[in-house]
Amino acid sequence: HHPHRPSVGLIGAPFCKGQPRGGVEGGPDLIRGARLVERLQAGGCAVKDYGNLQFEEFADDEPVGVVKNAKAVGSANQRLSEAVHAIKKDGHTSVMLGGDHSLAIGSIHGHAAAVGELSVVWVDAHADINTPMTTETGNLHGQPMSFLLRELRSKTPTLPNFSWIKPCVSAKNLVYIGLRDVDPAEHFILKLLGVKAFSMTEVDQLGISRVMEQTCDYLCDKVQKPIHLSYDVDAVDPSVTPATGTPVIGGLTYREGLYVTEYLCQTGRLSAVDMVEVNPLRGQTEQEVQSTVGTAVDLLLGCFGRQREGNHAPDYQLPLP
Amino acid sequence: HHPHRPSVGLIGAPFCKGQPRGGVEGGPDLIRGARLVERLQAGGCAVKDYGNLQFEEFADDEPVGVVKNAKAVGSANQRLSEAVHAIKKDGHTSVMLGGDHSLAIGSIHGHAAAVGELSVVWVDAHADINTPMTTETGNLHGQPMSFLLRELRSKTPTLPNFSWIKPCVSAKNLVYIGLRDVDPAEHFILKLLGVKAFSMTEVDQLGISRVMEQTCDYLCDKVQKPIHLSYDVDAVDPSVTPATGTPVIGGLTYREGLYVTEYLCQTGRLSAVDMVEVNPLRGQTEQEVQSTVGTAVDLLLGCFGRQREGNHAPDYQLPLP
Amino acid sequence: HHPHRPSVGLIGAPFCKGQPRGGVEGGPDLIRGARLVERLQAGGCAVKDYGNLQFEEFADDEPVGVVKNAKAVGSANQRLSEAVHAIKKDGHTSVMLGGDHSLAIGSIHGHAAAVGELSVVWVDAHADINTPMTTETGNLHGQPMSFLLRELRSKTPTLPNFSWIKPCVSAKNLVYIGLRDVDPAEHFILKLLGVKAFSMTEVDQLGISRVMEQTCDYLCDKVQKPIHLSYDVDAVDPSVTPATGTPVIGGLTYREGLYVTEYLCQTGRLSAVDMVEVNPLRGQTEQEVQSTVGTAVDLLLGCFGRQREGNHAPDYQLPLP
Ligand SMILES: [Mn+2]
Ligand SMILES: [Mn+2]
Ligand SMILES: [Mn+2]
Ligand SMILES: [Mn+2]
Ligand SMILES: [Mn+2]
Ligand SMILES: [Mn+2]
Repeated sequence: HHPHRPSVGLIGAPFCKGQPRGGVEGGPDLIRGARLVERLQAGGCAVKDYGNLQFEEFADDEPVGVVKNAKAVGSANQRLSEAVHAIKKDGHTSVMLGGDHSLAIGSIHGHAAAVGELSVVWVDAHADINTPMTTETGNLHGQPMSFLLRELRSKTPTLPNFSWIKPCVSAKNLVYIGLRDVDPAEHFILKLLGVKAFSMTEVDQLGISRVMEQTCDYLCDKVQKPIHLSYDVDAVDPSVTPATGTPVIGGLTYREGLYVTEYLCQTGRLSAVDMVEVNPLRGQTEQEVQSTVGTAVDLLLGCFGRQREGNHAPDYQLPLP
Repeated sequence: HHPHRPSVGLIGAPFCKGQPRGGVEGGPDLIRGARLVERLQAGGCAVKDYGNLQFEEFADDEPVGVVKNAKAVGSANQRLSEAVHAIKKDGHTSVMLGGDHSLAIGSIHGHAAAVGELSVVWVDAHADINTPMTTETGNLHGQPMSFLLRELRSKTPTLPNFSWIKPCVSAKNLVYIGLRDVDPAEHFILKLLGVKAFSMTEVDQLGISRVMEQTCDYLCDKVQKPIHLSYDVDAVDPSVTPATGTPVIGGLTYREGLYVTEYLCQTGRLSAVDMVEVNPLRGQTEQEVQSTVGTAVDLLLGCFGRQREGNHAPDYQLPLP
Repeated sequence: HHPHRPSVGLIGAPFCKGQPRGGVEGGPDLIRGARLVERLQAGGCAVKDYGNLQFEEFADDEPVGVVKNAKAVGSANQRLSEAVHAIKKDGHTSVMLGGDHSLAIGSIHGHAAAVGELSVVWVDAHADINTPMTTETGNLHGQPMSFLLRELRSKTPTLPNFSWIKPCVSAKNLVYIGLRDVDPAEHFILKLLGVKAFSMTEVDQLGISRVMEQTCDYLCDKVQKPIHLSYDVDAVDPSVTPATGTPVIGGLTYREGLYVTEYLCQTGRLSAVDMVEVNPLRGQTEQEVQSTVGTAVDLLLGCFGRQREGNHAPDYQLPLP
């Protein structure tokens, strides 16, 4: 364990009920199977694997309006919130492997419960900020930010098993990167709250380098808050990460996706990471699944110090003839 | 129909005789079939579909030197010119769905006849500025700009059914974006006339953001002329738009292609658009055809206000609990 | 032969023993078969093809430590060094078609023997700077720079058939572009010697345009030394150049790869080029092989004056009606 490398607390959340497609619950074990732990350790990180959460099933989980599986989503996130809270109290950087993006509710909630005020960097093709009143699909993976933002408290009805949630993120501490499929209601909310968003248009305009500079300038102005990175693999282009539930053309390149993680790593303030929406059943071929999972692992390695220029241990000794 | 959205006048030109490959005449109906009209309307545009033009056939359309199908191309473009003239007189932004790129003759001619002096943004892997004296293939889709530029009048012979054409574009009002397959004669002409051209080298050098800034600085210096955007789908990389007659490696990414349209939309001066060279018979798979057609539709939506950051109607009301 | 175009001296090096995969010895003839010579000539270059080198076989080429095929690699590079020396003495820009990247030893050595102090631009996913003491694979294509750098003389043991090599490159005259798979020992060496390296992180951060500007600013400060470009096709992304032995995700785009060559061409100081690691047996399909070979040819054309904006001969006359 290198002295300057964080220790990682890994928690799997094999949960899919925030959206309708089976398979995304296989994400945690698939990402582990791609040797995430071994590769983090090879890079000098200590890793504690907290295993996979188990979730309660609800026979009576009827739609609330159009919103589906509210009890299951509320309950799963409560468990996840407690798990992440514990991981942070144990002194680790939390890594949550999803599962669908509704899990950001619990992950961010538990993180904030442990460390207080957070900056959130949400990397996604989607804003996931519909409220239960605006969602067209009823899928809760499109709504997590609406439960987390203090400014949306009065705009969001209470759902069964959601009463434990205390909104804990301020709109000014949230930055989106990668947006390109945003509903009208979501766009209205982003403008209403003045949320900082780098859609793919801004990525094209500024380049990923200035996007990350501006992201950190924006988030880091005064108090150096811990950063929660919530990374939906569909932020990256479907040519790279096709095995996901809601792919959208025109995404981040592999290189841009990785640059985001390398840059946030170098801030020294990355305190929790979600890697969500890897769905092996959505790959058309084994190669598509492997590309998606491999990218997810590379993004996580980027979060924890792997550099494309190379790395060497501080005590490296060059063998001589 | 949103107050700030243009109304679109749509004209299909199922014409292929500017080049040798069948299939490109299927472009207009294929693009309509991808729900262009419905999606423009969903975005707040009024749309009037003027249907597809019908073109005269010529049994005696013998080559003039190496130039093929001159009578057919001249006649088709005369009809198209009149149609676009009428669409502009009706107060619409003209959208011409090709068909091959020889149709730019009629589209630009009719546009200029209605509104006067134009700026032309030509997005293409090719300069399409051979004269009938320099063309090696004899295909008129590689020559339209030579008939439209005032400066080339004395360099271009008269072809049968071309006598109605009055050169109506000044070289200083033309900008190329995306060039990467330019004949020696074309390169000579571009340098001779001092035409502003952002080849893929300049796109690499400057980035698409500064290319568009410089394009508009260049075109918009004094008089704010209406912009004619002539978009050949082969400007975009063949990995995205393979179903086209003359694909060339190393093109614009989907995102760059779209950025061009978003940027021109925001000038408020887009007055006519051509979307040409979609050829379903050139796709190797159904997926290749769909990617090409889908990109053509996305480019057109970008021209008419669709933003990747999202959109909402000016009168949007957030539903509350 | 255009007056301002260099004359090219072409040498094939069908050699594969710097690495374990058969096929890379087919590179020279495959690249020639894609009409390299004809296309260079069409672009105005004089070309003298010196044919393919023949290499000695060694029955007793036992590993030295883990290092494989030392005698074969040493001998092949001695012949190549003499061949490149002769090509330079004949007044040509040398183009060496590999073969694997261990051949850079001979190519750079022979180049330096003829012209003196060089600048080296090494475009590669890999740093190829392991010493025989640090290599994990024992493959000499991962070690050529360790034999060429003066600063590594004392760190590199002598191998059989390597005693003719005189280190001839200074660390300050070396620039890497495209790194993304660098071993810890290599990273240590790069930092120890302060070698200028634009890994893919820096390409993402700066853009290829500023990378090339900074490369030339760095190399061209005082004395205008001849440039040796050593181009491993695995620098380019595997989606473009898959037919290579050690592909690594996240590489240069086709456009970036080409921009490097166009930019170096315009310095007027390109004195020798290696194009290595094209391995037809590593393509999964004929299309993958053709994409790799076609890219290698395009990169070489970019080195010798082909511009994406087009070209015309200085004495071009526009045919008039
Ligand atoms: Mn999401
Ligand atoms: Mn998403
Ligand atoms: Mn065209
Ligand atoms: Mn074209
Ligand atoms: Mn190499
Ligand atoms: Mn390499």
